[in-house]
Amino acid sequence: MNVIVGGGVVGLSIAWRLAREGLPVTVVDPAPGRGASYAAAGMLAPVSEVAYTEEPLLRLGAASLSRWPSFAAELAADAGLGAGLGPGLGAGLSGGPNGGPGGGPGGVAGARAGEAFGGAFGVIGPEGAAGRALDLRADGTLDVAFGADDLAALDDLAAFMDKLGLRVERLTGRECRRLEPMLAPSVRGGLLAPGDAWVDPRRVTAALLAALDRLGVPVVRARVTGLLRDGAAAPGAATGAGTGSGPSAGIGAGTSGAASAGTGGVAGPVAGAATGAVTGVRLEPVPGQPEPAVREIAAERVVLAAGAWSGQLADVPVRPVKGQIMRLRSPQPLLGRCVRGMVHGAPVYLVPRGDGELVLGATQEELGFDTRVTAGGLYELLRDARELVPGVTELEVADVVAGLRPGTPDNLPIIGAGEVPGLVLATGHHRGGVLLAPLTAALVTSAMLAPSATPSAATSRPATAASTTAQTGTQPAVQTTTQPAARAVRLSTGAGILTGEEGELAALCSPARFRDIS
Amino acid sequence: MNVIVGGGVVGLSIAWRLAREGLPVTVVDPAPGRGASYAAAGMLAPVSEVAYTEEPLLRLGAASLSRWPSFAAELAADAGLGAGLGPGLGAGLSGGPNGGPGGGPGGVAGARAGEAFGGAFGVIGPEGAAGRALDLRADGTLDVAFGADDLAALDDLAAFMDKLGLRVERLTGRECRRLEPMLAPSVRGGLLAPGDAWVDPRRVTAALLAALDRLGVPVVRARVTGLLRDGAAAPGAATGAGTGSGPSAGIGAGTSGAASAGTGGVAGPVAGAATGAVTGVRLEPVPGQPEPAVREIAAERVVLAAGAWSGQLADVPVRPVKGQIMRLRSPQPLLGRCVRGMVHGAPVYLVPRGDGELVLGATQEELGFDTRVTAGGLYELLRDARELVPGVTELEVADVVAGLRPGTPDNLPIIGAGEVPGLVLATGHHRGGVLLAPLTAALVTSAMLAPSATPSAATSRPATAASTTAQTGTQPAVQTTTQPAARAVRLSTGAGILTGEEGELAALCSPARFRDIS
Repeated sequence: MNVIVGGGVVGLSIAWRLAREGLPVTVVDPAPGRGASYAAAGMLAPVSEVAYTEEPLLRLGAASLSRWPSFAAELAADAGLGAGLGPGLGAGLSGGPNGGPGGGPGGVAGARAGEAFGGAFGVIGPEGAAGRALDLRADGTLDVAFGADDLAALDDLAAFMDKLGLRVERLTGRECRRLEPMLAPSVRGGLLAPGDAWVDPRRVTAALLAALDRLGVPVVRARVTGLLRDGAAAPGAATGAGTGSGPSAGIGAGTSGAASAGTGGVAGPVAGAATGAVTGVRLEPVPGQPEPAVREIAAERVVLAAGAWSGQLADVPVRPVKGQIMRLRSPQPLLGRCVRGMVHGAPVYLVPRGDGELVLGATQEELGFDTRVTAGGLYELLRDARELVPGVTELEVADVVAGLRPGTPDNLPIIGAGEVPGLVLATGHHRGGVLLAPLTAALVTSAMLAPSATPSAATSRPATAASTTAQTGTQPAVQTTTQPAARAVRLSTGAGILTGEEGELAALCSPARFRDIS
Repeated sequence: MNVIVGGGVVGLSIAWRLAREGLPVTVVDPAPGRGASYAAAGMLAPVSEVAYTEEPLLRLGAASLSRWPSFAAELAADAGLGAGLGPGLGAGLSGGPNGGPGGGPGGVAGARAGEAFGGAFGVIGPEGAAGRALDLRADGTLDVAFGADDLAALDDLAAFMDKLGLRVERLTGRECRRLEPMLAPSVRGGLLAPGDAWVDPRRVTAALLAALDRLGVPVVRARVTGLLRDGAAAPGAATGAGTGSGPSAGIGAGTSGAASAGTGGVAGPVAGAATGAVTGVRLEPVPGQPEPAVREIAAERVVLAAGAWSGQLADVPVRPVKGQIMRLRSPQPLLGRCVRGMVHGAPVYLVPRGDGELVLGATQEELGFDTRVTAGGLYELLRDARELVPGVTELEVADVVAGLRPGTPDNLPIIGAGEVPGLVLATGHHRGGVLLAPLTAALVTSAMLAPSATPSAATSRPATAASTTAQTGTQPAVQTTTQPAARAVRLSTGAGILTGEEGELAALCSPARFRDIS
């Protein structure tokens, strides 16, 4: 069994891809799809989402964006959302991970992904089943500027994009308003990234859950309180030692589960208390959900995709970065594409949904595990959105949500096997979880199917030893789930195949880069 | 039977007072307590709530405020909310309608009501059962000013209050901040009305519903689509003619029920289609509520307390004035009293509740029957509240609501019998429904118990004729509710007794003042 801790867009994508490859998978999350994914705007916008100092993140985003068309088409098919959209459709798309131009060493994978993606949307875009089912659109992103400083920054960004061969267009204020008539008159210029796309993350997680259900993958509504470790005492001795919170635990738990469990002084099967291989997870029930059938699940591999809560279960430098978003209801669409801008020194964006909703995002607050929607957060969102598009004031407020992004010291995700045998990390995606989900799933699948396929990961990952340990029966006497993988059939054999560029990107995301600091 | 159309704080108060006097009463409302009362902040603040050009409104507010202590005590007792608080307590309170100083002709009733009320709170205030049950507090209101214009306006208001004998204190900015340390540093002065009080309107309507239940008064969850009129055709002929919305109908129904029913060309028993006495109401069920036992209720008198929707049932000049409020959650109370101020030319107030909530209010928007919570409304509330009390930005957003106040051309309520026999009006309370509920209930009770008690109303009210008509059996062959008034026993004999000042105030509120314009 492979246990995925965390049922956000990253964890569910990994579970789906692994299940498609025939691996036995179980997902554990107290409220799947209700963490950071629920509060995400869903921009698939590597071009406009990154500062031009963040080239590695841009490369990751571009590579994952090029996987999105086939990912979406296959997901819609597996979730039963579109008639006639078989899993084979992805192969027919231009710009896919295997059919694309394929960046050379040091190049940018999917440098022309935007264009290829735009073309792909002719097939699976708003008119297609996947587009409708996931509210997937590729009408581009318009970055706008008000002042001289912002305009200069747009010029720098345009030059940088141009150097990378990415297609962007520098527009005057008048051209911006011609594209988007609702823009404020004070907008003085803009940068159009025509290939940027977006998707409704709530529809994506719902589709992933539907696909997992159809594949027979259990999704356990429970909280993971700790990781089972090899070489541990009898499980009974550890009762009560694990006080850390699992994913979506909410507010206030500043200390990590690993640390607090360790201070109990009990050599039980909890994170931090034993140094052996990870052999499974411990669960606790959550209010309002059926009691889980077991309190422990043994696993060959545990994939930690617990987002902002990952640091409570393992030694990873992930911190919560709070974001508040607001969804407005619009009788007629105010905007034809995503609009972004810097207002009062903070980035604000407006993402139009197909059903007339307009998402305003997002605050970035370093407040620990605080998920309160605050007066100040709403005020900033509304103030900044008004400056970009004054007409938002007329719209009805449909929803306000706060979520916690998993931030890392270098803003790059942490993907792959780390030091601890049996544990694979897929966390730290910060603002990019939705965009990076397809690539993350591919990297994890690749690592778990063929350990030697990703060179960087292979050097630092004793995953084979972990599975061996688990398989030879040294795990403690825990109950195992009786869930068979009978219905998980092999639907795709290409999910774990990486391009050369993706192999390099795997190294950028390797957990090994934090070994010195953690 | 007396039918009260509208289950807001005004309609429920009237029903309760009438039932206490032994009159048979039925209340009809699709969602009692969920209209404007639900969105009200609950300030009992005649002094600081009115512009100094609105002396009649000030007199009304002061008179009603002086009734609030006994009203609250009796309500808490009747609702079963406090042990040992009998209905007789009100008589022992200073400043009550009968024991108070009693303004002479032309004077201000309850001119010292604030002080008397403050004293009364020693008995029924926050420490008392009624105070706790209704979250009733009398810690005063602080009006603050930022600029020179606002300061000058405060000076004028202070002089005016002084002339009226009302107790207010003019404070410096420093003195304001000593009272309320969370006030913005830019506050330059203030006016303290120490006797102003406030209450939680949601608790008041809940208590009123509980009291009515204990008195055996039926509250029918249905929409009133029209008034039954004397001299009408058989009721069957009118089927489908009434398309107007009842109270709390929500959005979009810009045309009045009376008008739309009339244009059907059917001389049915609906408002506007017949000119005879009102003999009852027609009902339609509302989704999510049990089907009402009858579709029509015959009544000797119909009291129209349908707030902003009153104009859809009768010819009264009431228009909806939209207000949006926000409730914030505060771990510690930010404020000790109500704080108000003019910001960007609009009044904003912050009302602290006993449970740590802080209410921000309120927008005033002339948008017809629009109850959408909008981005612009929230923005203005947050922007203005921040300027008064910057610390609000840290608070959690608990709730956002929009309601429709019943506005009138002269900002005064419309209370008493109008031209149509059988119809009593109690509407048009605009921003003052909670404050004015006790006085309104007294005026209506007085009019219905002893038509000659209020001189001004007597000149314009053919209520006796109406009841006679109804009693002589000329109403159409409609089903009547089988609800007996068996449990409605006489609890009070003083509810309809008015002071001389209150008799004069009744004239101010008389529907007759609009006869020329309507």
